[in-house]
Amino acid sequence: MIVLDPYPRTLDQIFTPADRARLQRLGPVRWHDGPPLADDDVEPLLAETIAVIGQTALPAERLARAPNLRAVLNVEGNFLPNIDYDKCFRRGIHVLCIAPVYAQPVAEMALGLALSAAREIPAGDAAIRAGTEQLLGGDLGEVFLLRGKTLGVVGCGNLGRALLPLLRPFAGEILVHDPWLQEAVLRELGVEPVGLEELFSRSRVVFVVSAVTTENAHAIGREQLELLQDGSLIVLASRAAVVDWDALMDAAASGRIRVAADVFPVEPIPPDERARTTPNTVLSAHRAGSVPEIWPTVGTMVVDDLEWIFRGLPPRRLQRADPETVSRYRSKPIG
Amino acid sequence: MIVLDPYPRTLDQIFTPADRARLQRLGPVRWHDGPPLADDDVEPLLAETIAVIGQTALPAERLARAPNLRAVLNVEGNFLPNIDYDKCFRRGIHVLCIAPVYAQPVAEMALGLALSAAREIPAGDAAIRAGTEQLLGGDLGEVFLLRGKTLGVVGCGNLGRALLPLLRPFAGEILVHDPWLQEAVLRELGVEPVGLEELFSRSRVVFVVSAVTTENAHAIGREQLELLQDGSLIVLASRAAVVDWDALMDAAASGRIRVAADVFPVEPIPPDERARTTPNTVLSAHRAGSVPEIWPTVGTMVVDDLEWIFRGLPPRRLQRADPETVSRYRSKPIG
Amino acid sequence: MIVLDPYPRTLDQIFTPADRARLQRLGPVRWHDGPPLADDDVEPLLAETIAVIGQTALPAERLARAPNLRAVLNVEGNFLPNIDYDKCFRRGIHVLCIAPVYAQPVAEMALGLALSAAREIPAGDAAIRAGTEQLLGGDLGEVFLLRGKTLGVVGCGNLGRALLPLLRPFAGEILVHDPWLQEAVLRELGVEPVGLEELFSRSRVVFVVSAVTTENAHAIGREQLELLQDGSLIVLASRAAVVDWDALMDAAASGRIRVAADVFPVEPIPPDERARTTPNTVLSAHRAGSVPEIWPTVGTMVVDDLEWIFRGLPPRRLQRADPETVSRYRSKPIG
Amino acid sequence: MIVLDPYPRTLDQIFTPADRARLQRLGPVRWHDGPPLADDDVEPLLAETIAVIGQTALPAERLARAPNLRAVLNVEGNFLPNIDYDKCFRRGIHVLCIAPVYAQPVAEMALGLALSAAREIPAGDAAIRAGTEQLLGGDLGEVFLLRGKTLGVVGCGNLGRALLPLLRPFAGEILVHDPWLQEAVLRELGVEPVGLEELFSRSRVVFVVSAVTTENAHAIGREQLELLQDGSLIVLASRAAVVDWDALMDAAASGRIRVAADVFPVEPIPPDERARTTPNTVLSAHRAGSVPEIWPTVGTMVVDDLEWIFRGLPPRRLQRADPETVSRYRSKPIG
Repeated sequence: MIVLDPYPRTLDQIFTPADRARLQRLGPVRWHDGPPLADDDVEPLLAETIAVIGQTALPAERLARAPNLRAVLNVEGNFLPNIDYDKCFRRGIHVLCIAPVYAQPVAEMALGLALSAAREIPAGDAAIRAGTEQLLGGDLGEVFLLRGKTLGVVGCGNLGRALLPLLRPFAGEILVHDPWLQEAVLRELGVEPVGLEELFSRSRVVFVVSAVTTENAHAIGREQLELLQDGSLIVLASRAAVVDWDALMDAAASGRIRVAADVFPVEPIPPDERARTTPNTVLSAHRAGSVPEIWPTVGTMVVDDLEWIFRGLPPRRLQRADPETVSRYRSKPIG
Repeated sequence: MIVLDPYPRTLDQIFTPADRARLQRLGPVRWHDGPPLADDDVEPLLAETIAVIGQTALPAERLARAPNLRAVLNVEGNFLPNIDYDKCFRRGIHVLCIAPVYAQPVAEMALGLALSAAREIPAGDAAIRAGTEQLLGGDLGEVFLLRGKTLGVVGCGNLGRALLPLLRPFAGEILVHDPWLQEAVLRELGVEPVGLEELFSRSRVVFVVSAVTTENAHAIGREQLELLQDGSLIVLASRAAVVDWDALMDAAASGRIRVAADVFPVEPIPPDERARTTPNTVLSAHRAGSVPEIWPTVGTMVVDDLEWIFRGLPPRRLQRADPETVSRYRSKPIG
Repeated sequence: MIVLDPYPRTLDQIFTPADRARLQRLGPVRWHDGPPLADDDVEPLLAETIAVIGQTALPAERLARAPNLRAVLNVEGNFLPNIDYDKCFRRGIHVLCIAPVYAQPVAEMALGLALSAAREIPAGDAAIRAGTEQLLGGDLGEVFLLRGKTLGVVGCGNLGRALLPLLRPFAGEILVHDPWLQEAVLRELGVEPVGLEELFSRSRVVFVVSAVTTENAHAIGREQLELLQDGSLIVLASRAAVVDWDALMDAAASGRIRVAADVFPVEPIPPDERARTTPNTVLSAHRAGSVPEIWPTVGTMVVDDLEWIFRGLPPRRLQRADPETVSRYRSKPIG
Repeated sequence: MIVLDPYPRTLDQIFTPADRARLQRLGPVRWHDGPPLADDDVEPLLAETIAVIGQTALPAERLARAPNLRAVLNVEGNFLPNIDYDKCFRRGIHVLCIAPVYAQPVAEMALGLALSAAREIPAGDAAIRAGTEQLLGGDLGEVFLLRGKTLGVVGCGNLGRALLPLLRPFAGEILVHDPWLQEAVLRELGVEPVGLEELFSRSRVVFVVSAVTTENAHAIGREQLELLQDGSLIVLASRAAVVDWDALMDAAASGRIRVAADVFPVEPIPPDERARTTPNTVLSAHRAGSVPEIWPTVGTMVVDDLEWIFRGLPPRRLQRADPETVSRYRSKPIG
């Protein structure tokens, strides 16, 4: 039995008719939609379950009652602490999530935000609508090119790796900080591995695209921000928890740096969130990953990987949980 | 004598002290700043002039009085009809302009506008400031990725060639229309040469980056716009005269397509320009080429090419006027 | 205890003094060199062993006596059947091998062989030494460019992925056949996934870089070779067992295709191997992976990954055995 | 009248039926094949001639008798001193040659020679044929990878520009020396401009792809070769006259460096040319540009550019003679 428990996704959102048909060819499917499967619904299925598609809780005792389980495919982007991952690994159960599907949308948005902030595109648009524009930008003294600038990327997982190809044609040095990757791994990607401080000291634009982990919460604070050169830009595209938000807003308000942020410490954004009135910012309401065209890809990736697993081959499309890191992630589903 | 007549640029804007020093090492310099050189000032210099840096009028009779002239280096981006180009070519006088310096700024802005419009970045920013944002974009049904989309580029001169490398990592087909380039030249650039109609039919995003010429004024009209698929995007980054502006605004107003425009049919933009209130647009007040950091490059390029010319080598940095095309350009300096 | 059993490598070959020092900082090391560790030497170490660097046999009973084992790092390129892989996976023991270190040497050699065969470089060199050369190639009617040609790659593991970037600047279509990778995975790499028959029908040059597995032995036979267009080229750079060698030699002998081979069905190559006298071939004695400068990298990769494992992070540099595939490989160490 | 005088090419070699038909649509054609047009044949045609396709001598007096001449399209790769170029330029006559058609063949051969020499491919092939091979290369201590190595390119015209994209995936620094290009032009190409001495001091592989000019004859001599690190490689792919041949052969014979040469000081190569017996060399008999598939491209390029010229547009496919440099070239047609 392949058990569907797709919340917060819906079946229609992620499965095309073609992918539903492919899924059904893999075995009996327990279709379910809407709110999470109730415990009472889950229990009787466990004995027959070969795969779970969703975020169903799978503590040790449930896993013990699911002897045929071969794969858990989370159709949301975060690994939650409701699974006994260690048990899964020891039994060879694949634990996968759809994080890679967000990589391209976030990477494109991160670049869009960087160009928007560097060239003041939203402010320029607002000025024309308000009738206050200055032709040729007037004394826009601070707009700048990306070409040739040193660009820093904090985090080189799915998001960072999707971002790098978009940054390369700007032909500047690319610095990357990722404490989970050996330096040689980053060098093979054609970037320069650096510590967080060096990254902030040298980069004109800093892209923050790291997942929140047990180790990096608020790691980017006042001290790092002070290392930035005047007129630098931070693009915050993963989660707000990796920065000291007050320090970030202070730096933008001071006029020393620019900030483009897709994420906020509290979401939905409270009415009195100070970013709403902070100058030198470009703001986006956690929309970097939200592009409708990616949803059908989720279903395709899920079925592709299930096909592969049932064929006795390693899944290649979704992200595999690593025993060493799966319990260190602290990014949460939103709203 | 090297004669400076840099209007609408100023000496401080384009020449660093280092470049002034290099210029002076090339020969006696007649420094001038501010408004264009008066005719009375030009005439007595002609006999000794070896190079003119600026947009000084050089009709046949003046050229005849400047027997030592070897180069004219226009520090604005357009070839104006105030020079007898034919006489220059027959005498082997180099006629150059700084158009290439704008290529990277415009290319980056064109991509920034495309991402801004595709992802509704300015509207998203305005919504947060107005307190009306929807987290995750709500039902933003039309935002889209550039990845994998067919991208069309109208014009493959300085601007188009700077844009292509920025578009490549999005990994879609790239179509180019440029009637001044043989198809094989475009194929060598790794793009597909197409006619204007095919470009509009197939492209999800159309970048208009062609200079205005005697041949293409208003070439993009209602007929072409109707070929666009629903939800397509036009980025207008060179000059408004190549499009039928009313047709363009109608198409945006109808909701059928999106438009990002850096240029307008009348500039400065009149108060009642309808774009100001047209939905589905991202607007910018002719700011694509205006990035302060490019100005010192202008002086460096000018001195680099003068050095080369005086050393008996062909200039390589500025754009050379071509006898066949120089008189066909119709882009004008702005305001 | 970190146990070294590096045969067929030697310590001096793979460990620089710096890497030895790094290794020693990770824990007590049982240094060993020369022939494989004798069983009598292995047994008393098992209880304390935390990592094995080498091809030491690790059947179930030995693993049972090594309760602290966390990693097995094979410093030869093939996963051998002398380990109970399943037990390792269930215990979370990392099983790694150095196959990635060969990827770049083999990829460069594969391209070198392709250009050598396409342009008849070895024959041209031999002709000058023999005094029989024809200036400008005389009637060399069949030499050809790679530019714009359809290139096929059989296998997209370490070798194939290192080869792709070297093939891209030739700007032709790249077809890849790899039955262990979903089509979308290959498309993400920017290549076209195809079946083996389509690959042979369409490619002007076919690079065979797949490992030998239980599934592909002799998969490239007379039938596939007949699909090749006249004048095509096969570059055989992984193992001979994936082709029907007689059929390959027949095709080269007939003059219908060219063959460049780094590998042979029996190695060392027997004196009467027919390839030695077969025309239309470029031959190399299994030298594609043998470049002295890679050896110190082996030691660095081993220590990098051990450091990461002991730090509680997933290893990133060596190849990880996959439960699904590790027992399907059939490539053997050489002579 | 379009006058054909294609020697040393033949009409069948360079014109497909389709290109002949296109040519005829451009105006009356005086077809000629075989040896160069005799003076007696040329003279009566001059008055009507609008274009010459070939290497017909065009001194001042002939040009004076050809008032309608608009273009000279040399279908061999060198600008010869049999034309009064200055007169052509003053009259706006385009002077073009097919040098660009050789760029890709030479670039691919240069890379093929580099890989052949770095990996000893010809020697390895010869060893198997002689039965003296050593499996895995035995003690081949000096073979090396291109990856990560500093690569130097002398000359950045057609050949150098075609070579650069092939070198980029090897991911090392690329140094270029070209005294006809400003440093900024080279930097825009993504390479580091250097002087000849620095290039030789820093590069592991030096590609010599510069045309012979009045300035660079024998510019690469004993002094430069001594700057090379031990084990470096020189690939000589344009003309032998730019090097001190004896010094080059001495360096190869000494075992200090490797040499791959496609060109020789005397061609056809004399029987006693010492290179034939010099070790540490890979030799090719001026075959880098000779690939049959390029010939039809010559005709297509010629017709493409004539079409453009007659349409009043600048030619874009062939190389345009530059007034400053055309008389400095000293490469000669071969044999």
